Amino acid sequence: MISKNQIKQIQTLHLKKNRDAERLFLAEGIKTVTELLLHRTEMIKALFATPAFIDENAGLIAKNNIEATSISEIELKKISVQTTPNSALAICSFFKEQELAYNFDLKYSFYLDDIRDPGNFGTIIRLADWYGISTIFCSNSTCDLYNPKVIQATMGAFLRVKIIYLPLPDVIKNYKIKTVYGAVLNGKNIYKEKLNNGLIVIGNEANGINEENLKLITQSLTIPSHQASGTESLNAAMATAIITSEFFRQTRM
Amino acid sequence: MISKNQIKQIQTLHLKKNRDAERLFLAEGIKTVTELLLHRTEMIKALFATPAFIDENAGLIAKNNIEATSISEIELKKISVQTTPNSALAICSFFKEQELAYNFDLKYSFYLDDIRDPGNFGTIIRLADWYGISTIFCSNSTCDLYNPKVIQATMGAFLRVKIIYLPLPDVIKNYKIKTVYGAVLNGKNIYKEKLNNGLIVIGNEANGINEENLKLITQSLTIPSHQASGTESLNAAMATAIITSEFFRQTRM
Repeated sequence: MISKNQIKQIQTLHLKKNRDAERLFLAEGIKTVTELLLHRTEMIKALFATPAFIDENAGLIAKNNIEATSISEIELKKISVQTTPNSALAICSFFKEQELAYNFDLKYSFYLDDIRDPGNFGTIIRLADWYGISTIFCSNSTCDLYNPKVIQATMGAFLRVKIIYLPLPDVIKNYKIKTVYGAVLNGKNIYKEKLNNGLIVIGNEANGINEENLKLITQSLTIPSHQASGTESLNAAMATAIITSEFFRQTRM
Repeated sequence: MISKNQIKQIQTLHLKKNRDAERLFLAEGIKTVTELLLHRTEMIKALFATPAFIDENAGLIAKNNIEATSISEIELKKISVQTTPNSALAICSFFKEQELAYNFDLKYSFYLDDIRDPGNFGTIIRLADWYGISTIFCSNSTCDLYNPKVIQATMGAFLRVKIIYLPLPDVIKNYKIKTVYGAVLNGKNIYKEKLNNGLIVIGNEANGINEENLKLITQSLTIPSHQASGTESLNAAMATAIITSEFFRQTRM
C-alpha cells in the first residue's frame, strides 16, 4: 500500500525543478526497472510495483535490500506519467557527476540542438545504444534526460549512453572536433557523400538548427526525398535514425 | 465562441466507434489544417481556430464557404487531444470509399502488422510520403488512421498516402506480390542484402510480426546493431525509417 505522502513525493518528481533539487527521478516499466535491478541497483531508492512484479523479482529485491512496496494497478495509474501504466515504478538517484565525465571516444556522435519532444529524445538514446554511440551531446534547451517520458522511451538505454549538456562551441573545442555535420534541408545528398567520423548536429523539431550553431557546421547533409513528395520534412528522431544508419553502413560495414 | 454541444460533439470524436458512426474525424494543428484548406477543403465540415489563424486564412475560408468559429486557446485546450494545443482544429469527413481504392503501383511498400502507437503510425505515414511510397497496408489491429494523434503526427501526409486495412494474405494475393520482406531480429544484414521491389512487413512494437504472417515472409531482414549494444530492439517507427532509407538508397539512388 502506498501512502498519500509517497504519492505526493512521486508526483513532485514529474517536474524538473523538483528532480534537480532532490537529485531523484522516476523510472517506469518492466524493461527499465528490470535493467535497473540487474545492473544499477544502487540507483534505486524505492520501488513501487504490482505483486506479480515483486514476486518475479523477489530474489533481486532481497539480495539488494531494496525497499519495495506492493501496489495495485489503480494506484500505479495515480503516480505514472504514462497513459497505460506498466507494472513497476522506481524512484532513482541521478547519475554521479564523475559518471558523466568525458570518456569520449569520438567516432561519430550527435549534438542535439534543442530537441524538445521527450519521445524523440528517448528514442534517439535507444538508437544511439543500438549503433554503439557511447555519448550524446545536447544543448541546454534540449529536453531533460530525467523526464520520466524520456527515461521510458529509452527502454533502458539511458543506463549505457552518456548524455552531456554543453554548448556546441564548447563541445567542438573540448573534443577537438574537425568535422561538424549538420542535418539541413538543402545540404549534400547523404547517400552520395563520403561520410566519416565527426559530430552530427540535429536541429529542433520545428525550427531546425539555430543560427549560431549553423555557422559551426562544416558539412551540410540532407536526406533526399522522392520527387513527388509533398512532405516538407521528416520527424527529427526519424531523420536521426536514417542519418545514423547511413554513417554506420558507410563506416562500419 | 464554441457551444457546449459543439465541445461535446468534438469530444465524442476522440473515440473510434463514434468516428466510424458519423464518418467524421478531427484534424489539428496549423500545418494540417492549412493543408486541408489548400487542397481538400471539401473534407472540412467545421473549423475552430484562434482569431489569428482565421484572419490569416480569411481568403481561403471565405472562398470555400467554410463555417469557421473563432475560439480562445483555453477553449481549444478543452477540445484538443494534444498536450500543447495548436491554433486550429477541423472536423472533417472521412475519405470516400473510391479514394481508398486500389491504385497500387508496387515498387516497395509497407505492411504494418499491429502497430499500436498513434505516434509511430503517424510518423510512418509521414516517412512514406517523404520517400514516395503511395500506399501503406495495415492489419485490422493496427491503429485507426483517423485517431487524432495519428492525423497530427502525419503532418498532412495522410492526405497523400493511402492507408488500406487488409489481412496480409489478401494483400499478397490481390497484388500478386512475390517478395515479402520481414523485419525481424535474426534475418539477413539489410546493408549487405540486395534489396528489390516488394512488400516490407513491420511487426508490433512489443511482439514483432505475428506467427501466421511470419510464415508468409520470403526474405527476413535485420538491421545489425553494434556489437557492444545492450539494446534489444529499435523503436518500430525508427526501424521502419532505417529500412525504408536503405531500400530507397539501393533502388533509387
